[in-house]
Amino acid sequence: MSSEVARHTSQYRVRYSDTDKMGVVYHGNYLRLFEIGRTEFLRDRGLPYSQMEHDGYMLPVLEAKCEFLLPARYDDVLEIHTLVEPLDGMRLTIRYEITRAEATLVRGWTRHTFVRSETFRPTRPPEFFLKVVGDHQ
Amino acid sequence: MSSEVARHTSQYRVRYSDTDKMGVVYHGNYLRLFEIGRTEFLRDRGLPYSQMEHDGYMLPVLEAKCEFLLPARYDDVLEIHTLVEPLDGMRLTIRYEITRAEATLVRGWTRHTFVRSETFRPTRPPEFFLKVVGDHQ
Amino acid sequence: MSSEVARHTSQYRVRYSDTDKMGVVYHGNYLRLFEIGRTEFLRDRGLPYSQMEHDGYMLPVLEAKCEFLLPARYDDVLEIHTLVEPLDGMRLTIRYEITRAEATLVRGWTRHTFVRSETFRPTRPPEFFLKVVGDHQ
Amino acid sequence: MSSEVARHTSQYRVRYSDTDKMGVVYHGNYLRLFEIGRTEFLRDRGLPYSQMEHDGYMLPVLEAKCEFLLPARYDDVLEIHTLVEPLDGMRLTIRYEITRAEATLVRGWTRHTFVRSETFRPTRPPEFFLKVVGDHQ
Repeated sequence: MSSEVARHTSQYRVRYSDTDKMGVVYHGNYLRLFEIGRTEFLRDRGLPYSQMEHDGYMLPVLEAKCEFLLPARYDDVLEIHTLVEPLDGMRLTIRYEITRAEATLVRGWTRHTFVRSETFRPTRPPEFFLKVVGDHQ
Repeated sequence: MSSEVARHTSQYRVRYSDTDKMGVVYHGNYLRLFEIGRTEFLRDRGLPYSQMEHDGYMLPVLEAKCEFLLPARYDDVLEIHTLVEPLDGMRLTIRYEITRAEATLVRGWTRHTFVRSETFRPTRPPEFFLKVVGDHQ
Repeated sequence: MSSEVARHTSQYRVRYSDTDKMGVVYHGNYLRLFEIGRTEFLRDRGLPYSQMEHDGYMLPVLEAKCEFLLPARYDDVLEIHTLVEPLDGMRLTIRYEITRAEATLVRGWTRHTFVRSETFRPTRPPEFFLKVVGDHQ
Repeated sequence: MSSEVARHTSQYRVRYSDTDKMGVVYHGNYLRLFEIGRTEFLRDRGLPYSQMEHDGYMLPVLEAKCEFLLPARYDDVLEIHTLVEPLDGMRLTIRYEITRAEATLVRGWTRHTFVRSETFRPTRPPEFFLKVVGDHQ
């Protein structure tokens, strides 16, 4: 009922390899952090993405959007807040907010559709997924 | 006059390090290709970004958007088509299309504003930049 | 006294972005895992590398060696075992072993020397570093 | 006869995404440059690695070694010099030297063995490979 059930927070420590010569996290690296956010969301729901793939489903990224509001710096501990929106037909939208202490550094979303691993064809979300994220619809 | 003057095409060969276990280019890596596109656009205009930084200007990415239409595969030669839009006040929008043969694989844009290197404060685009990309306005 | 004092173990979860089309972690990514290992070793000794940089010292990598024995796969939880060797003059050697359950996947080392941040010149290790890792000499 | 036949030189332009907060190329990224070197060596011999994989052979990296002598900086154009050593039984050693103008920045090598794609089992190098790199033995 409450959208709380579709939220999750992960932590990420910024590494030297994440930074660029501006002294901040290279903007392209945030899509990796979004990946961490949605993967840990699913694991937290008892539904590891690796298991989903094993069961013949994949969830490729169709679209991604990022807003870079403030820079993250080396050794910062970031929080990745992930929010899975109610399904819109076959489309799944996942929202992310990356924060450090009280500040929002990056905001974004990714859009996905389920595909069957063998055929790469779009498919309805598997039942177990609906059960797991469906409560909030 | 024609928007042709604000276009550029670069080539990129897909490497093993760009792929992921789906056998295709990891979606997060396309932001690096967008970087290549706009950097080579500027170099082609006689305005290397490294020179711009040396002159005290930076052009950080404020927003980015990608649509992943078709996968790129190992060893593919991709074309990165870059189109710089007319300035909208202090905002600069750059559009990208990544193609292989006739197919469009990825489409996206980045939004930027100029900042002074010392202060990281937004600033009007430098004269030399306006001269270089300004023709098409 | 015991070399135990110069050991540390960190954990790392393999992400999609770490894998390549062979379905395993791209070999070049293990140097990032070595970085995580030595950074967390130092933090665990109360000596975050970010603090060391703040105090004017850097510890660039001069050499690196890796042996890739077995592949790591998506979603594996790896252990990064880090062992700091006794200083050899100005040279610092750090050894790494990356394991999954009982299996050793990757073994390697990096060699470093301290430099002053302002000059990038080699320097003797700072006193606080000797205190922190010195017990085992 | 001459070892010249087993040499190749590729070029690489340093991107923002390659740098770290020290303002230089992150050391872990050089393994990607080694990959470019050996891939372009093979293509230059008429033997694209993608074709080799298609024919059922893979050439995983078993060991890698790098020496970081001088830093590469943003927008540098680097030369990747690749030298394939005569086969030592099933082991293939490839040497790399990364230079800018006259300076050697990085030196290293990788060690490989051929495996069959289906089984991942070590195998003798395919005939076409011996023909292609064999001249220099």
